[in-house]
Amino acid sequence: MPLPPETESHQSTRLSRRRLFGYTAAGVGGALAGAGAVSAATALGGEPPADAVGRRTVAFHGAHQAGVTTPAQARAVFVGFGLRQGIDAAAVGRLMRLWTQDAAALTAGRAATADPAPALAERPAGLTVTFGFGPGLFTAIGRPEAVPAGFVPAPEFTIDRLDARWTGGDLLVQVCADDSLAVAHAVRVLVVGARPFASVRWQQSGFLPHAGVAPGATPRNLMGQVDGTANPAPENGLDEVVWSADGWLAGGTTMILRRIRMDLDTWDRVAPESQERAIGRRLSDGAPLSGGAERDTPDYAVRDHHGKLVIPADAHVRRASEQANGPGSGRILRRGYSYDDGVDATGQADCGLLFAAYQARFDSQFLPIQRRLAELDALNAWTTPIGSAVFAIPPGCQEGGWIGQGLLG
Amino acid sequence: MPLPPETESHQSTRLSRRRLFGYTAAGVGGALAGAGAVSAATALGGEPPADAVGRRTVAFHGAHQAGVTTPAQARAVFVGFGLRQGIDAAAVGRLMRLWTQDAAALTAGRAATADPAPALAERPAGLTVTFGFGPGLFTAIGRPEAVPAGFVPAPEFTIDRLDARWTGGDLLVQVCADDSLAVAHAVRVLVVGARPFASVRWQQSGFLPHAGVAPGATPRNLMGQVDGTANPAPENGLDEVVWSADGWLAGGTTMILRRIRMDLDTWDRVAPESQERAIGRRLSDGAPLSGGAERDTPDYAVRDHHGKLVIPADAHVRRASEQANGPGSGRILRRGYSYDDGVDATGQADCGLLFAAYQARFDSQFLPIQRRLAELDALNAWTTPIGSAVFAIPPGCQEGGWIGQGLLG
Repeated sequence: MPLPPETESHQSTRLSRRRLFGYTAAGVGGALAGAGAVSAATALGGEPPADAVGRRTVAFHGAHQAGVTTPAQARAVFVGFGLRQGIDAAAVGRLMRLWTQDAAALTAGRAATADPAPALAERPAGLTVTFGFGPGLFTAIGRPEAVPAGFVPAPEFTIDRLDARWTGGDLLVQVCADDSLAVAHAVRVLVVGARPFASVRWQQSGFLPHAGVAPGATPRNLMGQVDGTANPAPENGLDEVVWSADGWLAGGTTMILRRIRMDLDTWDRVAPESQERAIGRRLSDGAPLSGGAERDTPDYAVRDHHGKLVIPADAHVRRASEQANGPGSGRILRRGYSYDDGVDATGQADCGLLFAAYQARFDSQFLPIQRRLAELDALNAWTTPIGSAVFAIPPGCQEGGWIGQGLLG
Repeated sequence: MPLPPETESHQSTRLSRRRLFGYTAAGVGGALAGAGAVSAATALGGEPPADAVGRRTVAFHGAHQAGVTTPAQARAVFVGFGLRQGIDAAAVGRLMRLWTQDAAALTAGRAATADPAPALAERPAGLTVTFGFGPGLFTAIGRPEAVPAGFVPAPEFTIDRLDARWTGGDLLVQVCADDSLAVAHAVRVLVVGARPFASVRWQQSGFLPHAGVAPGATPRNLMGQVDGTANPAPENGLDEVVWSADGWLAGGTTMILRRIRMDLDTWDRVAPESQERAIGRRLSDGAPLSGGAERDTPDYAVRDHHGKLVIPADAHVRRASEQANGPGSGRILRRGYSYDDGVDATGQADCGLLFAAYQARFDSQFLPIQRRLAELDALNAWTTPIGSAVFAIPPGCQEGGWIGQGLLG
């Protein structure tokens, strides 16, 4: 399927602009400066002033669904659904038409079809809605042959302690925005719309830096690590890593969401130098232990004066890296979010990472990496994967079309 | 206790600046425009650009604790602690010295004493930390006579269905900031610091519009209502409503946190006109049903052409209002947050309002309002209070002092 070039360049432009400047700087340096000045004046008359973050929209229609290569917004909610008994391909098609219509409206800042609180749709704050199909959906619709090549159910790795509460699902709705209310409202509309077809199996909420907080910087996770440096950039194969060219999935991708709990109590007892060796990067700025700055290429061969590898054999970055493990050892786009759900029933902090990764082909890109990490990764001592779900993410649609049409239409 | 005027005016200035302009507009129109321009240039060299929201600080030291009349930040976590067996006044004093020191550092963007992840302290994003003492603390320290006048345990109202999981507590830590990571890190430091003294009983997380989203506007809650219009303003008695002049609590206040679950499924089935009558305000803009704009004074006497009250007898705003119920019927400062904890074990949406109210005297300001609402309030049909906790919020401290010194020192 040929990709309309204007959509592509549109999304790439957004990506690099935000990477470089962030919201605030973009507002200062760009077209929004005028709007800000006007608003400051009208504020004295009692009107609310500029609302640049709140009014921002991300295009819903296009060759790809938004929310994958879209620069990650500050908040995400992932919802996994189980299809109800007797829901067939035609019924799923009706749901996807409804969801597409509602997502197109909400992401544009308009109320959904049967919006219970239209005022809450007014500030989409960069809202994106991304839909996905779990392995069980292909069985339910009687189309096992339509399972994309390499889209296998995620295995339970030896390090996993999967909880059914966070695992599996026939449908995914991923909702991201730079405002919690925009996310909550979109989730409410889409969950209610799905009721005749599917019920919520799990719902997971995560965060990244809010707009205006460290714009342009790679975010830190709750362990304090700079996390995401090695992600593919548009100029470095992003499209090839992410977008499939396979049958009905062409222009789509595959996604895995792993809920990785962190044991911060034991992590915090580890000396910073040992933490850095477990990661392979400096805590202060994310630079590889082999030297240089954050985005410099790690030197996995360099040794210290004792002859020991500076980036240890079990360092997370070495085990995850394609560079260290050879061509074809796996490249993915990570778009994870921290989660912090307070304390569990035993009083322990219930927090960690909602690890979300996207790749054109699941088996040959994601699985090799995860197998290596399950086999050996120093970070495994302080992390436990407790949830896992995989989805095929259909391509985007143009106006008048709907998400999933290539499979279900 | 005389209040240092410079601290007061400092806080008032912040309040009105943010109310009028919000972050983005302040950045565009004010001193930050230059910083933004510089950052856009340095970004090309790989440095992160302007970080106005992330680097903002709110003064910790002062006559009052921050986090009460401080304009509400985007995120809040409230943590309720139970004192461990045998913790006496001297031990609580040690905890409060430690907490004060750590809160003063973190709110200034510096690492705490034994900070497990110093890099996470770099962007406080307007962080405030507010400490409170529950009724049980006075018993534990053997000082029942020190219970502030009118600081009675919150009764269980007829509408309440209190869950022990969200109720009570000997100590409160309220952490607010415009970034989720800043909040999570501060909570982690303070919870770990408290371990020898107290254990977490509950932890509740809430949100308001993020920085740059609808700055200057009264926020909406998950029901879609504009919520908080009638809060006292600095020019309209805010200080008298909030700050106590009573004994060791002088310069402090009292706080109640009620977890109010919303049944959005049934609320959404109600016609918008009926929703508006239950509230007493228009959904579109928050204006009173008696007419005018959001901040205009409601006319509780006006009737329609059928002779019916335009703001019904059971409308929430009428039942809550001091104006409608006569002088002395209660004034409070609300500083509530929405919460959305996904779905509960039964698949129902677990969301609502973390209602936080501050008042100089608990019995004569808060209780009359809550008694009226428990007796009659149309909104009770769609809301259920499931948690309740009250705290005396000590006054602030100057550098070298510590929070609670007037009681425990």
